[in-house]
Amino acid sequence: MASQASIPKGTRDFSPIEVSKRNYIISTIQQHFKDFGFQPIETPTFENSDTLMGKYGDEGDRLIFKILNSGDFLKKVDTAVYEKKDSLRLSSSITEKALKYDLTVPFARYVVQHQNDIDFPFKRYQIQNVFRADRPQKGRFREFTQCDADVIGSDSLWQEVEFIQLYDAVFTSLNLKGVSIKINNRKILSGLAEVIGESDKLIDFTVALDKLDKIGEEGVKKEMLEKGISESAIENIKPIFNLKDDFETKINLLKSLLSHSKIGQKGIEELEFIQKALQELPLKTAKLDLDVTLARGLNYYTGAIFEISAPPNVKMGSIGGGGRYDDLTGIFGLKNMSGVGISFGLDRIYLVLEELNLFPKTVEETTKLLFINFGDEEALYALKAIQALRKNHIAAELYPDAAKMKKQMSYADKRSIPYVVLAGGREMQNQVYNLKNMATGEQSNCNLEKLMIHVSG
Amino acid sequence: MASQASIPKGTRDFSPIEVSKRNYIISTIQQHFKDFGFQPIETPTFENSDTLMGKYGDEGDRLIFKILNSGDFLKKVDTAVYEKKDSLRLSSSITEKALKYDLTVPFARYVVQHQNDIDFPFKRYQIQNVFRADRPQKGRFREFTQCDADVIGSDSLWQEVEFIQLYDAVFTSLNLKGVSIKINNRKILSGLAEVIGESDKLIDFTVALDKLDKIGEEGVKKEMLEKGISESAIENIKPIFNLKDDFETKINLLKSLLSHSKIGQKGIEELEFIQKALQELPLKTAKLDLDVTLARGLNYYTGAIFEISAPPNVKMGSIGGGGRYDDLTGIFGLKNMSGVGISFGLDRIYLVLEELNLFPKTVEETTKLLFINFGDEEALYALKAIQALRKNHIAAELYPDAAKMKKQMSYADKRSIPYVVLAGGREMQNQVYNLKNMATGEQSNCNLEKLMIHVSG
Repeated sequence: MASQASIPKGTRDFSPIEVSKRNYIISTIQQHFKDFGFQPIETPTFENSDTLMGKYGDEGDRLIFKILNSGDFLKKVDTAVYEKKDSLRLSSSITEKALKYDLTVPFARYVVQHQNDIDFPFKRYQIQNVFRADRPQKGRFREFTQCDADVIGSDSLWQEVEFIQLYDAVFTSLNLKGVSIKINNRKILSGLAEVIGESDKLIDFTVALDKLDKIGEEGVKKEMLEKGISESAIENIKPIFNLKDDFETKINLLKSLLSHSKIGQKGIEELEFIQKALQELPLKTAKLDLDVTLARGLNYYTGAIFEISAPPNVKMGSIGGGGRYDDLTGIFGLKNMSGVGISFGLDRIYLVLEELNLFPKTVEETTKLLFINFGDEEALYALKAIQALRKNHIAAELYPDAAKMKKQMSYADKRSIPYVVLAGGREMQNQVYNLKNMATGEQSNCNLEKLMIHVSG
Repeated sequence: MASQASIPKGTRDFSPIEVSKRNYIISTIQQHFKDFGFQPIETPTFENSDTLMGKYGDEGDRLIFKILNSGDFLKKVDTAVYEKKDSLRLSSSITEKALKYDLTVPFARYVVQHQNDIDFPFKRYQIQNVFRADRPQKGRFREFTQCDADVIGSDSLWQEVEFIQLYDAVFTSLNLKGVSIKINNRKILSGLAEVIGESDKLIDFTVALDKLDKIGEEGVKKEMLEKGISESAIENIKPIFNLKDDFETKINLLKSLLSHSKIGQKGIEELEFIQKALQELPLKTAKLDLDVTLARGLNYYTGAIFEISAPPNVKMGSIGGGGRYDDLTGIFGLKNMSGVGISFGLDRIYLVLEELNLFPKTVEETTKLLFINFGDEEALYALKAIQALRKNHIAAELYPDAAKMKKQMSYADKRSIPYVVLAGGREMQNQVYNLKNMATGEQSNCNLEKLMIHVSG
């Protein structure tokens, strides 16, 4: 019986043109990672469950794909556990491995495991797929690609400067204008909570603040009140709800707001360092924007927080993000390793480039010449030219069968192959190839050397 | 509590140098795939279980990694099934997805699913990881990379010719000499079974014959006898146990052996077509060798069978293989689609290149210049040069902290960075950079332009 041909929901097949477009983005990012001195690593598709479980919160644990143990996996399961028929308890007895959920935790595990072979500060990049048992929806998949770069083992702010430049370099190469690099600092958020006397409600405070974009000023105030933050406290930070000005004006406002918070002032100092450096090393394409409502995974970041917004004319939201974390490897027993990193959201960048028509035409090029197959003798004659073309990395194909001319031409047409070569008995006798330009319809005889020059141009 | 930093057995972390070496092989193979007109596709890491199960035999089914259903996976399990506590039966009730086992079955599924968007003959390549719950051992892993190229939708023998050329092109680029491309044909094997009157024992016959390399002539005969193949039958094909001659002599022997088998003669005809074409299009590096004992996955191949042997001075066995299959997509309901394909064994090719010291030195190059960090002002001066270097795709880094000189130099040394740049107050005043060649110890002042020229050379 024939199986049905389908794939699991939330996963995707990529067609040749999709792979080519994805590879265009990936290789652009990769080239800049390398230019900036990052080195590649790769980690396995699945990790031991205990490496991943408990690292992403309860919600994260729920979204981790678990791999069933091989063989007679029930053999070692305790009878009492089995009889309870409880999915959660049973799952930890019958699974030991799980698919990676992100690249950050496996990276932390890698650093700890290989710490004796690593020269710190360690600048690594990693471009691999991750998996989440999330409800699939537009732009959200169960398997997707992350492109991460991190530095671990130094707390220098020059790295924050360099990551902003790296983002700018990539978007410049992709010709994607209008991107804004939003920056904030965990210490600013801590400072704000401190000056309004709500330090113990830091998480509630920032979670609410982070929603300003979505639910507006009134919504944020309402949520803060619900969480027990007082009306007068909210009144104190009112100015930050309407920060529309430039970087420096915002900084000046923060300076007055946070004048009594030591940690807040440290945050401002860090932001100013970055901003001043970038005045000397100006960005080409992207714009740096201070967004004091930006929080992301707050319990994770300890300094800078980045988020990349797609150009305003595209409805896409964040196409990347990152930040500074001071103790990532601590979960695996290696303390005091400050790190900072960023990530590019491949799938969303793809959608943005598609919408703005920014993929270069060359990405779609595959085979440059199709040689028509007139029979075995002619095929052999064609293959001699094809061999020479391929040696010069000009992609060329022989139509495999001596099918009807119309069928072969239509194949070239459908595949958007720009040149067709017709070489039958007469051409063989004269040692030439008849080259047809599919766009213009022009046809001309030329020897192998001229053929090569013609299609290389 | 800190989790232990380790990875599942049979899986691997790849360090920067390992990733670079793997990518060198992958990009070489990929370049030739493209030159030969193959187009890339990618399929999900996991498939629906019923796409994979039953496609690789019982042993294969056992080696497929299954993914536990998310959420309350026991909810829908039938009580009667649950109470049996039978691993095999339960597993099909609690798993719907499985990790890919190879690239061929997902490719067949892809072709059937997307048949209306594909222009046949479809030449596709695919370089992705596959997973097998095999017992890990030297050179055998639970996650490994396959590099496949297939053509589907044509039975032209020119494709067999082209695949042999493709193998040769890749090994030529990798500078790997002494590889032999062993070829056989399923029809030859069928013919041999036919002429000895044992057509119904074709599988037993070829499985035994395939072991000639390992167990020798006596071993093969013993196994054939055990399987019920008569002594006189074995006597009839005795000459094939000692075929040491060249391609043509072997063909001539087969011609006389198979003179009464129509299918056998068809096999010979196919082999001769390929051999004659290759006489006109000679191989550069590899050697074509007719091996009538070669069977591989016999129940799968219907025409040509390929296997690639590493050079004789390396003990590695097969580093690739493939063949013609006439009905691969039939399992998913699309009949009469002849296909032929080959695969490169990345991990084994890696080990061979390592053993023969064939990785080019350039593969190990990462960052070309490290700028010493003397403090913030100097760092800013350095970053201006670094920005210009990176724009020309010369990888350059600033040491992130103004650490002791010795520490920074030692970092450059350990990372094998060939150039260090020292630029302090005096250099800044003179708008120069002091460039130190780490290999020779030479030091010289130069402006940015000269610096760029110097390190580009």
